[in-house]
Amino acid sequence: MVEVEIGTEFLHGEPRIATVGIDLMDQTLAEQGIATTPTQWRPPPADIAATLGQIALSTEVASANETAVAAITSARPHLVGIGVASASLELERGTFLHAGPPIEWDQASGPLRGALIGAALLEFPDQTPVQLTAHFEAGEFALAPCHSRGAVGPMAGVVSPSMPVFVVEDDVTGRKGFCTLNEGLGKVLRYGAFSPEVLQRLRWIESSLAPTISATLGRTGPIDLFAMIAEALQMGDECHNRNRAGTSLLLRALGPSMFEAANSTSEAADCFRFIAGNDHFFLNLTMPAGKVAADAARGVANSTMVVAMARNGTEFGLQLAGTGEKWFTGPSGMPQGLLFAGFSEDDANPDIGDSTITETVGLGGFAMAAAPAIVTFVGGSADLAVKSTRSMYEITLSEHPMFRLASMDYRGTPVGIDAAMVCRSSLLPVVNTGIAGKKAGVGQVGAGLVEPPLSAFVSAIQYFGEVNRGAFTDDWSE
Amino acid sequence: MVEVEIGTEFLHGEPRIATVGIDLMDQTLAEQGIATTPTQWRPPPADIAATLGQIALSTEVASANETAVAAITSARPHLVGIGVASASLELERGTFLHAGPPIEWDQASGPLRGALIGAALLEFPDQTPVQLTAHFEAGEFALAPCHSRGAVGPMAGVVSPSMPVFVVEDDVTGRKGFCTLNEGLGKVLRYGAFSPEVLQRLRWIESSLAPTISATLGRTGPIDLFAMIAEALQMGDECHNRNRAGTSLLLRALGPSMFEAANSTSEAADCFRFIAGNDHFFLNLTMPAGKVAADAARGVANSTMVVAMARNGTEFGLQLAGTGEKWFTGPSGMPQGLLFAGFSEDDANPDIGDSTITETVGLGGFAMAAAPAIVTFVGGSADLAVKSTRSMYEITLSEHPMFRLASMDYRGTPVGIDAAMVCRSSLLPVVNTGIAGKKAGVGQVGAGLVEPPLSAFVSAIQYFGEVNRGAFTDDWSE
Repeated sequence: MVEVEIGTEFLHGEPRIATVGIDLMDQTLAEQGIATTPTQWRPPPADIAATLGQIALSTEVASANETAVAAITSARPHLVGIGVASASLELERGTFLHAGPPIEWDQASGPLRGALIGAALLEFPDQTPVQLTAHFEAGEFALAPCHSRGAVGPMAGVVSPSMPVFVVEDDVTGRKGFCTLNEGLGKVLRYGAFSPEVLQRLRWIESSLAPTISATLGRTGPIDLFAMIAEALQMGDECHNRNRAGTSLLLRALGPSMFEAANSTSEAADCFRFIAGNDHFFLNLTMPAGKVAADAARGVANSTMVVAMARNGTEFGLQLAGTGEKWFTGPSGMPQGLLFAGFSEDDANPDIGDSTITETVGLGGFAMAAAPAIVTFVGGSADLAVKSTRSMYEITLSEHPMFRLASMDYRGTPVGIDAAMVCRSSLLPVVNTGIAGKKAGVGQVGAGLVEPPLSAFVSAIQYFGEVNRGAFTDDWSE
Repeated sequence: MVEVEIGTEFLHGEPRIATVGIDLMDQTLAEQGIATTPTQWRPPPADIAATLGQIALSTEVASANETAVAAITSARPHLVGIGVASASLELERGTFLHAGPPIEWDQASGPLRGALIGAALLEFPDQTPVQLTAHFEAGEFALAPCHSRGAVGPMAGVVSPSMPVFVVEDDVTGRKGFCTLNEGLGKVLRYGAFSPEVLQRLRWIESSLAPTISATLGRTGPIDLFAMIAEALQMGDECHNRNRAGTSLLLRALGPSMFEAANSTSEAADCFRFIAGNDHFFLNLTMPAGKVAADAARGVANSTMVVAMARNGTEFGLQLAGTGEKWFTGPSGMPQGLLFAGFSEDDANPDIGDSTITETVGLGGFAMAAAPAIVTFVGGSADLAVKSTRSMYEITLSEHPMFRLASMDYRGTPVGIDAAMVCRSSLLPVVNTGIAGKKAGVGQVGAGLVEPPLSAFVSAIQYFGEVNRGAFTDDWSE
């Protein structure tokens, strides 16, 4: 029994109690009817405690992180055109890109396998799914992460050489980022479906939608994506799981030029209606915009800032600005949220997709305060949206100068995840995400929130400590 | 000196103190460093105190108000087409409609006079502004409120016979409501400008925009405006002073059909770009949608619910469901907010326009919690947006079943202003509004918040009491 005595002579007002660490204190107070604010904090893992201490004291790390986050927040990505994956991504026949960290066929989950088969059917239309599966099993097709070619892909994220891709260019660094065009809802490749209707739609995207948008951009000139995202944040999008405003603003910007540029009114109308029929169309622009912004911070030595978070449906992986191309991984989590009618948790695949690039640059779960309506997709109350954003300031290095939250008096969204701060607080990034069915071809079964595995952040810090030992002012060997 | 003693044996936690009426108590507590929540409540005007008491006890009034607000909230207005004012509003040559309650030329403010001259130039192009002014001064042209013809007009709200009007029809009652097409920003008739460019734009609206939209609607069929408004509320609009989402959703819905229906791609592109260039385009659809919804409650005997609030730039006027076509008026207030660069308060005209129909049906100031970004237009902090909405539940009869606030866990917006509740609480409706320059032709000089005059509500309740004396179960003659 814990007795709380209040020294009235020095305390004005009711004391407010925050509890930390093990639950015993919190529970005991609760039994006495005393309100507490339990914190998320847990002690950092023992094996990296010393490294975390050194990082906290290092002026080199602090300065590197400042540089890294400034690189993210000063990017100005523009949609400049449409390319073909074979040329834009130097993607050779027989190689397939996928979301998340590297993975081989034998470890791939249902939706990723389905999407790979679908993409292979596009590239090798004279072969059957059984034949193509055999090629994957035999290792005759190569797999590589989208991130390794400057691209990002939602859900399974599979890209094959013939696919058209958005080309996004950062005005500041000149870097380019790429993403396929969003296929719409229902049975689609990115959720692992590969039926004839899925392939037919992909062929239409290649033969009609992509050239029409390309010609449209020839008339409009580059589209300033961060300006559009900043506006969408004032219109209820958090730009990962809710993209209705972004898609509407894009149509508003492209609409008339699309009709002026298209081969015919009916072709333009088909393209306009296809985009208007899919609120997530804009996600495939926010993602490569996020990619080029995050890539601007790649290679900043000594930085513990995260430049990529991505899931392949089996594993979650992250990369740090200061540790090159190395991935740090842990098991993909299971999103918690709302499942569509007719589906149960048994139908859900573990977390999948490169769309966590949005959270990496201060959007998605980090911008939930902009999107109270998101709770209709992911469950919870409006309060959850604000709380999620607020908590992310504790693991980020800065506030985004363009992504501002009207409901928080125009405070910038939290941006620049510091893996060291994540490990110190055990507070994990909040991710909004779609939930894929675990069987190939089922499609989306829901949407929800998911936390990346802490172990990936711990591995990253552990590695960072090893490679940098002795490199800083404070002697790390002590 | 007021001493506050806390009986700790029966009070748990810090007492929270609400102060009411005169400021003395509140000030005294503040001097002692004690936090208070001052309420807006003031005692009701003495001359209607008895009437207010009788209304509060009357089951007839309660039941009538229930009927009246149910009529507002069950309306389903659709945009069905475009008409011409002469036919749709039975508007004869030489008659001009205006915003607000009835007014004559000699009382009209600068922007209203400017708009009347502009509309007269449209109708009588062979006459000069000086000649036309003389006709108005001599009473040779007739003036009538938009509301008297089933129409509503933003700002000066001037309608002349040749102008095209949106035709909005309520699916439930079959009632129709009308509004001109929004002219855009800058120098426009509704702010009292009548230069050649203003007239030329109005002629283009008549000859090109209106027929194109009309043909477009022939392909799309009726547009469900309340569904679109409900969606815009999830996208940061409060649908009076912020209409960016509504305008975007409208373009998304009409876009392809506009190109299919237009005479040419270039004409459709001009129309699309004109709409896309003006975030307020959708306001002129929300207004007639609100009008038919409010009109559904007109004529409910014994109801103290407000069915119209409107300002002519000189006077504010309101109508009650239970008192027929009679207007109750008071002086137009001066909006407080943000003035555009180069303008001072001296340049501002008193409050003008029928756009308060939005507040009448649970939008605008009543839905501010949906639009935290509105504070960039009207001043204040994000908190003001939520507080404004919350306070309006105190003077309204219900919550709107379609207009829901994501940030308040999908609570419906406050709807159905009860003039008796306004008088009892002295809490006035919150109105978001544009600010017109007081000189004809200056245009918009800012935006802000304004309160209607309490005296109009008091007059309404006074009149309601007089005409209904003895009519209710509880004998009012006591």
